[in-house]
Amino acid sequence: MTFDNIRFVLVEPWHPGNIGAAARAMKVMDLRRLTLVRPRDFPAEEAVRRAHGAEDILAQATVVESLAEAVADCRLVIGATSRARSYPHPVLDTRQAGARLLAEASRGDQVAAVFGTERTGLSNEDLNACNFELRIPTSKDFRSLNLGSAVQLLAYEVFMASFEGAPNRERDVEYPNAETLEHFYQHLEGVLDARGYTTDEMREISFFKLRRLFARCRPDVAELRRLHSLVRLMARDS
Amino acid sequence: MTFDNIRFVLVEPWHPGNIGAAARAMKVMDLRRLTLVRPRDFPAEEAVRRAHGAEDILAQATVVESLAEAVADCRLVIGATSRARSYPHPVLDTRQAGARLLAEASRGDQVAAVFGTERTGLSNEDLNACNFELRIPTSKDFRSLNLGSAVQLLAYEVFMASFEGAPNRERDVEYPNAETLEHFYQHLEGVLDARGYTTDEMREISFFKLRRLFARCRPDVAELRRLHSLVRLMARDS
Repeated sequence: MTFDNIRFVLVEPWHPGNIGAAARAMKVMDLRRLTLVRPRDFPAEEAVRRAHGAEDILAQATVVESLAEAVADCRLVIGATSRARSYPHPVLDTRQAGARLLAEASRGDQVAAVFGTERTGLSNEDLNACNFELRIPTSKDFRSLNLGSAVQLLAYEVFMASFEGAPNRERDVEYPNAETLEHFYQHLEGVLDARGYTTDEMREISFFKLRRLFARCRPDVAELRRLHSLVRLMARDS
Repeated sequence: MTFDNIRFVLVEPWHPGNIGAAARAMKVMDLRRLTLVRPRDFPAEEAVRRAHGAEDILAQATVVESLAEAVADCRLVIGATSRARSYPHPVLDTRQAGARLLAEASRGDQVAAVFGTERTGLSNEDLNACNFELRIPTSKDFRSLNLGSAVQLLAYEVFMASFEGAPNRERDVEYPNAETLEHFYQHLEGVLDARGYTTDEMREISFFKLRRLFARCRPDVAELRRLHSLVRLMARDS
């Protein structure tokens, strides 16, 4: 499965809480493969606490002694950096990196995203193990992105890349057909005419705008019944 | 400035650490306006600790007693939800929501993104104050997105949208703010009560559904005037 070909690697994570947050951030986006290079404090209770249901990701995490070992079988390695380097790799933003990780993983390659230690990020030597740099777009004035947040943003972009377009859920309701909607308009307009709502000159444009409003609104069948009942209230003798 | 027209609202945040994480997540994406509705524990040291350099966002945060107060002057309100509701609004994913917040803020409107309390999210009543739902795409098996992460993802999408050339052109119209919309609801409900529109038992759900319908509909200022005039027709003595 494509997502299982994608691993996230944390190099020398300092706070165990960040390891837990990373596990949670990955799992919520269907990513499960976490590798830790020389974690300062792991396993740790704080990691489990912050994982908040993603303990399985922690339990399955691979712990290794070097970045080289962590990515030995990977054909694509993208390293997160927050500042320009003297010998920069080609730079990808989060969206580009997510798309590339997914695309190469989907053809069966092992791929990795690598995140450095909290204070100083990846070393220049670490970057030599990478094919690209990931630069997450941030404010020019405040670049202090939390490690868990950085993992969250890239995991999200991998997940988003896996959809063709956005998974836009429609309301699961029954809409009236055009004929039924037309009955409502005629009901409304008949009552408005009877109540002298508008002048002759303004009648057409008034009704046009009301139709436009309700068409945009797209009432469902139940809502349309409700609107009919409001219109009945407008009829003086109701 | 466009970004200053965008506020993020946290309703009843439980963990002060999450407030700090939200402040940091916002600031790293150039967003500065945080509003807290009935925070359980604020100000708090844990919030400052997790803000990690974004203490200014916390210091400037507005604390209010109700969501209505938090968004009174907003013309666009998007509420984050993690599960389908019985009476859903149109749903935007993170990318769509970020683009829309930016587009409407860039023409000078006040706009808001609203996040519910950690365990249960926004109430149905809270959602009536919203024009759209935000559904952040997540795993089907594990939807437990941290509050700070949710804020981070939307803040990132607002920031990303600011790079994408001309924002999507919205309908070039003036929308009423939440307070003005509330006046309309009260006008409508007052007349409906006077006309005996609904029984005591059904009153709450009837009014709930009407508010939901009109919030989704998002009438502009001219349309709202028109709706007021329809409500006046419902008053028997008009």
